[in-house]
Amino acid sequence: MKKYWHHTRIDYDGTQLSSLFAYKSFNVQGDSIVAFRGKCDVTIDEMVDIADVKDKAFIQSKDMLHFIVEQFVIDLEKAVFHQRLLTTIVKEALELEFSERSEVQRVIRSGDDLFIMNRKLSVSIATLSPVSSLIHFGINVSSEGTPVPTCGLRDLQIEPEQFAKRVLDEYTSEIEGIYLARCKVRGVK
Amino acid sequence: MKKYWHHTRIDYDGTQLSSLFAYKSFNVQGDSIVAFRGKCDVTIDEMVDIADVKDKAFIQSKDMLHFIVEQFVIDLEKAVFHQRLLTTIVKEALELEFSERSEVQRVIRSGDDLFIMNRKLSVSIATLSPVSSLIHFGINVSSEGTPVPTCGLRDLQIEPEQFAKRVLDEYTSEIEGIYLARCKVRGVK
Amino acid sequence: MKKYWHHTRIDYDGTQLSSLFAYKSFNVQGDSIVAFRGKCDVTIDEMVDIADVKDKAFIQSKDMLHFIVEQFVIDLEKAVFHQRLLTTIVKEALELEFSERSEVQRVIRSGDDLFIMNRKLSVSIATLSPVSSLIHFGINVSSEGTPVPTCGLRDLQIEPEQFAKRVLDEYTSEIEGIYLARCKVRGVK
Amino acid sequence: MKKYWHHTRIDYDGTQLSSLFAYKSFNVQGDSIVAFRGKCDVTIDEMVDIADVKDKAFIQSKDMLHFIVEQFVIDLEKAVFHQRLLTTIVKEALELEFSERSEVQRVIRSGDDLFIMNRKLSVSIATLSPVSSLIHFGINVSSEGTPVPTCGLRDLQIEPEQFAKRVLDEYTSEIEGIYLARCKVRGVK
Amino acid sequence: MKKYWHHTRIDYDGTQLSSLFAYKSFNVQGDSIVAFRGKCDVTIDEMVDIADVKDKAFIQSKDMLHFIVEQFVIDLEKAVFHQRLLTTIVKEALELEFSERSEVQRVIRSGDDLFIMNRKLSVSIATLSPVSSLIHFGINVSSEGTPVPTCGLRDLQIEPEQFAKRVLDEYTSEIEGIYLARCKVRGVK
Amino acid sequence: MKKYWHHTRIDYDGTQLSSLFAYKSFNVQGDSIVAFRGKCDVTIDEMVDIADVKDKAFIQSKDMLHFIVEQFVIDLEKAVFHQRLLTTIVKEALELEFSERSEVQRVIRSGDDLFIMNRKLSVSIATLSPVSSLIHFGINVSSEGTPVPTCGLRDLQIEPEQFAKRVLDEYTSEIEGIYLARCKVRGVK
Repeated sequence: MKKYWHHTRIDYDGTQLSSLFAYKSFNVQGDSIVAFRGKCDVTIDEMVDIADVKDKAFIQSKDMLHFIVEQFVIDLEKAVFHQRLLTTIVKEALELEFSERSEVQRVIRSGDDLFIMNRKLSVSIATLSPVSSLIHFGINVSSEGTPVPTCGLRDLQIEPEQFAKRVLDEYTSEIEGIYLARCKVRGVK
Repeated sequence: MKKYWHHTRIDYDGTQLSSLFAYKSFNVQGDSIVAFRGKCDVTIDEMVDIADVKDKAFIQSKDMLHFIVEQFVIDLEKAVFHQRLLTTIVKEALELEFSERSEVQRVIRSGDDLFIMNRKLSVSIATLSPVSSLIHFGINVSSEGTPVPTCGLRDLQIEPEQFAKRVLDEYTSEIEGIYLARCKVRGVK
Repeated sequence: MKKYWHHTRIDYDGTQLSSLFAYKSFNVQGDSIVAFRGKCDVTIDEMVDIADVKDKAFIQSKDMLHFIVEQFVIDLEKAVFHQRLLTTIVKEALELEFSERSEVQRVIRSGDDLFIMNRKLSVSIATLSPVSSLIHFGINVSSEGTPVPTCGLRDLQIEPEQFAKRVLDEYTSEIEGIYLARCKVRGVK
Repeated sequence: MKKYWHHTRIDYDGTQLSSLFAYKSFNVQGDSIVAFRGKCDVTIDEMVDIADVKDKAFIQSKDMLHFIVEQFVIDLEKAVFHQRLLTTIVKEALELEFSERSEVQRVIRSGDDLFIMNRKLSVSIATLSPVSSLIHFGINVSSEGTPVPTCGLRDLQIEPEQFAKRVLDEYTSEIEGIYLARCKVRGVK
Repeated sequence: MKKYWHHTRIDYDGTQLSSLFAYKSFNVQGDSIVAFRGKCDVTIDEMVDIADVKDKAFIQSKDMLHFIVEQFVIDLEKAVFHQRLLTTIVKEALELEFSERSEVQRVIRSGDDLFIMNRKLSVSIATLSPVSSLIHFGINVSSEGTPVPTCGLRDLQIEPEQFAKRVLDEYTSEIEGIYLARCKVRGVK
Repeated sequence: MKKYWHHTRIDYDGTQLSSLFAYKSFNVQGDSIVAFRGKCDVTIDEMVDIADVKDKAFIQSKDMLHFIVEQFVIDLEKAVFHQRLLTTIVKEALELEFSERSEVQRVIRSGDDLFIMNRKLSVSIATLSPVSSLIHFGINVSSEGTPVPTCGLRDLQIEPEQFAKRVLDEYTSEIEGIYLARCKVRGVK
């Protein structure tokens, strides 16, 4: 799994959640997690979560950290597992930030959502393209003007780029660890 | 996914990590997570982790909470994802315990291991049987006489049975949530 | 597998055979079989069976009982097995109806088609969406004005709604039975 | 899928349900359904159905028609679908026999079991070997001395070899039909 | 796997690489390899290789031998393996041609490309449709007017139709051999 | 895919074709191809090719170059594709050797066998373990005392270790190339 941080801002409008985005945009070929910063404004036409479409739960943020994971296997169940794991890793990266400053903040995960003090920190979706599995995971940088009460990295005094790189490192390590865990056991009866 | 808590103690010696254990022992048929309490003493013949066999890292505990997950699909990658998720859920259940008593304790996950204050709390392995995928996840109740420095639920003043039931509930909810997450999205390009 | 009977008529024009139809229309989320009654008139643009397109075998009925099965796995072979099983269950539900009235009528299955006295009773197709496998199975209520000689539930004096519910019950039971059959055997050499 | 009728009797003791039986015994290589006639006496050590082991439901018959299906894919769910389909095909072959003699007999299928007049006609199991999926399906020829009330082909005045060949033909045709049904549809949205 | 040679010329413009092409065009249903001769001119809109799109590497030939393989399974990894195997078989068929004339010509394979004397002989791509896996493999007949230095069957004095039929034969034999290789081994520890 | 050349001789007796051989013996964890040199003498108990067992075709060589490929996925079809590809790569490595010395020798591949001048150069088998897919590919160094007429690297004046390393390099490059080929295409209709 390759990792890539893109320095320039890209506004996320949902069209980035499509096959070969990392290859076309950043020349990153193969299973990858890429990250960039930018607005988030997904129109109803680009929404892939039909639950959100039914609820008219629009996804908007003035400034967000975006992660896009692509894996070249068509297996939505595995993609959702990856998504839950990515959510866990973001939670743990936040805990590490707080711990480094000897601060105490409880981060609560509920499925693929993260909350601090009942304020929503993230949005996420996993889906399939004709050739791959895709995940979008967005963390608020700014918490202004979001449709629901949110919390952002700025409120938590966390520098987005450094945080993104930590998540990229941890996620790729975790995937490598999972792979190795498959390659060390004998079968049982 | 069915859940089941077994009231009587069972000493875990590795032979419980085999196909249809829950069905044969507790009449629980189908994908399941079962839990019980008992010693842990896995002889080298029953060890499935070849890394441990090579390291002669014996697995022993005087008193442990044991979880066994069985899924009737032969896919070790999915089993390892389930294992990481179960580890995460145990971590979060500990955090909830601490939070309920307004206590602060950082739980650190490293792959499928949990640590508190650099002391190991858990052991885990995922493997395949000829008809299913299997996970063992053990949490120390007692931290006495273990081969490495450990921490146990007793040290943390956590009641094992209640904790086990919380984990059973959270794990089965999470699996249900993952299933529903697969059934609400349209594909993308 | 969830089951759902929709009381209001829906005319089937082929567009219902698409991902998340049950979720969007009836809020039924997850693997499901849903049933409703209505006309059947599939235009050539909506036909998914290329054999029918080549033969210009239009699918039309003034009044039909429709079943739509969706499973969130992309495996057309499994979908066709499900389709054959659903066809078998409809055959058996008809046999039970006749038996309850001490009547004798032979129902003949040929692949995914059902016949009584050389008259066609049903139409069916299985295909894939980008996120799921889908089956349409339609049983004539009326046999008037169909392109080939047909037979309908009305000719057989079978009440459609009750019959549909019997099929929904039997199909979901069968799927549950198949699942349990996978979770009770040891492997062999 | 190859089909093969073996002229000489073979007593079925459960060891025949193992990988490459058809290849080793009859030189039939590849996915196959083979049939032969012989006693049935499966000792508890050879039983693969743990439900039967728990119930001590021994499988015995003085004279049986045996079918063994092997498919070189490791997928127990597909094997159980094949088993249900084989059960359906045997039911339909019986119905055809009765129809040819203008007789009326209702055959009832319940999962993978067949009954006539509340008497059990068949036994069946599906499992996995390390390289394949396997099904045993046995139909009583004689109904004498069985552990539960049974019915046999002799009671029904059906000649076993001819019946076996009809089932071999119908089963292989059905599998071919299922394959072709996968190769004629376009995908949907 | 069915094989089919089409006598009439068809110009390949990329639209032929779509599901059910062989069924719609030649009534060849099921897994197949079909071959025909014709120009090759794929517009950028029909190109599926995004590496080529990025490089603006247009695919053009005045006269080519085209092979299209379709398999009704959605597995791009398997499709790429099939593609490499087809490339190997074309290489070996060329070697056989040279050997039959006691000629010496080294054919070099690099991934899915074939070269003779540093001149490119072939183009190929593997992709997925919503219901199948697809491969296009084209061999130059003429080497005139191609965007890069190429070599064609005409330069090698090889008669296209006969050569195509040899490849069709060898490829289908190889696939049959691979299938049989799966059906003759026991598992190991 | 990792590659590893083992300097010390190991006599191959069939027991090396088992799960985690590379991990246990050389500490190579994960998908791998390893190579070593040594005798070949597989007793009937260790033979996995039932065709050979039936034919009593014993596998023996005084000096062989052995390759063992392990992949942590249970898919015999993919393993056989890998085996055919490895056979192709050995053929091409031989062709490169001859070409470097401006020599002409035709190498003929038939399935997973290689021949030069009608003499057999190699043996190979692919099978499954409970946790992985495995391939053994052996190339004669010596051609003395083999059960059938053979040819060896010594007859061809090829230095085994260097040849082995070339094959290890080419094979791992090919696998990498196949992976990248999956990650550059859009789907088609």
